[in-house]
Amino acid sequence: MNFKRDLGIGIFDSGFGGLTVMRQVMDLLPNENIYYLGDTARLPYGNKSPDTILRYSIENAIFLLDKNIKALVVACNTATAYSLDRLQQIFNIPIIGVIEPGAEEAAKISTNGNIAVLGTRGTIDSQVYHQALLKLIPNVNYHGQICPLLVHLVEENMVDHPITNMALNEYLQFLKHSTIDTIVLGCTHFPLLQNAIQQIAGDKIQLVNSANACANKLKSVLEENKLLTLRTILGTQKYFISDDIKKFSHLGKAFLGLPIKNIEHFGNHF
Amino acid sequence: MNFKRDLGIGIFDSGFGGLTVMRQVMDLLPNENIYYLGDTARLPYGNKSPDTILRYSIENAIFLLDKNIKALVVACNTATAYSLDRLQQIFNIPIIGVIEPGAEEAAKISTNGNIAVLGTRGTIDSQVYHQALLKLIPNVNYHGQICPLLVHLVEENMVDHPITNMALNEYLQFLKHSTIDTIVLGCTHFPLLQNAIQQIAGDKIQLVNSANACANKLKSVLEENKLLTLRTILGTQKYFISDDIKKFSHLGKAFLGLPIKNIEHFGNHF
Repeated sequence: MNFKRDLGIGIFDSGFGGLTVMRQVMDLLPNENIYYLGDTARLPYGNKSPDTILRYSIENAIFLLDKNIKALVVACNTATAYSLDRLQQIFNIPIIGVIEPGAEEAAKISTNGNIAVLGTRGTIDSQVYHQALLKLIPNVNYHGQICPLLVHLVEENMVDHPITNMALNEYLQFLKHSTIDTIVLGCTHFPLLQNAIQQIAGDKIQLVNSANACANKLKSVLEENKLLTLRTILGTQKYFISDDIKKFSHLGKAFLGLPIKNIEHFGNHF
Repeated sequence: MNFKRDLGIGIFDSGFGGLTVMRQVMDLLPNENIYYLGDTARLPYGNKSPDTILRYSIENAIFLLDKNIKALVVACNTATAYSLDRLQQIFNIPIIGVIEPGAEEAAKISTNGNIAVLGTRGTIDSQVYHQALLKLIPNVNYHGQICPLLVHLVEENMVDHPITNMALNEYLQFLKHSTIDTIVLGCTHFPLLQNAIQQIAGDKIQLVNSANACANKLKSVLEENKLLTLRTILGTQKYFISDDIKKFSHLGKAFLGLPIKNIEHFGNHF
């Protein structure tokens, strides 16, 4: 009997965006226990340097490993870009990011190999999506689009605001006269803008939500490693948040699509 | 002889905004040595909770006190709102914030006592400006305006972008049919938007830049305490930055209005 099957899954993000991944994991693996770390006291990650993001990611991973987890999900594109390789070298459990699953999904559904990725400055500058796509489609036609305001607009509850529409129109200008047929939402905040993006991009363009792809990847990795729980009761969720719990509970609901309970503050660790 | 006169002045901020205060202090007290701490790895402060801001402020103050300073400037409105009183209780040197000097200046120049303050969510929610103004003008007509996007727009170098104009027009709508004659720029990022704000507000409204007021206050506090340096040579500046030095040097130039040299990274302290 493999006692590890009954350990939890750790998920971390700079704050809110990772909840879109959390939701997919909850839906796909309802019997698993999940620990979510949202580093809201230090958000955002997307405009900070590789060294700082790596330091934060290692600290977050250690915090979650201390909860005795069987697998770790880096549910933030910027943290995946700058820390996934190093985390996999350091720690001895399966660690899954959001970039590779998103790239694989895009490569699968694109019919002409012309693929764009929307992301933070950190994610796009890292070129990690580009490299992942090149491995899958050697002659990929790649466009990386930095969208620095979108995270703030989503976190300010401005999804339907004219300023968000103006920003999206500017960021999606590259679509004019382009042959792009697939866009990866390369930031875990962007699924909340999926409808607005689809409307500007038009029906012919397919959007890839890395959160789905990441949850599928987690499931198959757990299967391969015989780590899926055999329990048939619903799993539990626990949230560890470094800034205000009330704000997390309030804003987080829009990301998770469910009320959030069982939140604990942590702060003196860092 | 008072050896303390030759110690430095400490200034801290979440990152870039405090440089507008730094510049005023450099111009007014050119012979003083200044240590500037920019906590860029954890910015912004404006949308985080009082407890987190207090913790960060105490850590920043301890870091600067370790440089042996004779006075400390909290060059961030949100940090002033949530930590100034506590810092003054804990530490045994003069500590100056940006709110009281800004409120005093506004009370001085307003002819009708109708005063608005633009700030982050943290600063406005704290009501610290309102309270400071009430002490000076008991029947003040106060309007606090939360402007959550402006910090991001300034940090993304979008001062002249149509989105910034759209955001400012929305935030300044309260001026329609109002009798406000004075607006306090209650965030150290906002002096970079001074021209744009003045254009929308019109010539009849006076803007208060807390950075000037804060530097004047610092000078008078140093005078009262016989702490002004007697040296007649130019002082030195040193910057301690928790995220990437290059980005700070590049973006910081727009805030300081001068090239920034002598930057050191710190990061393992927190």
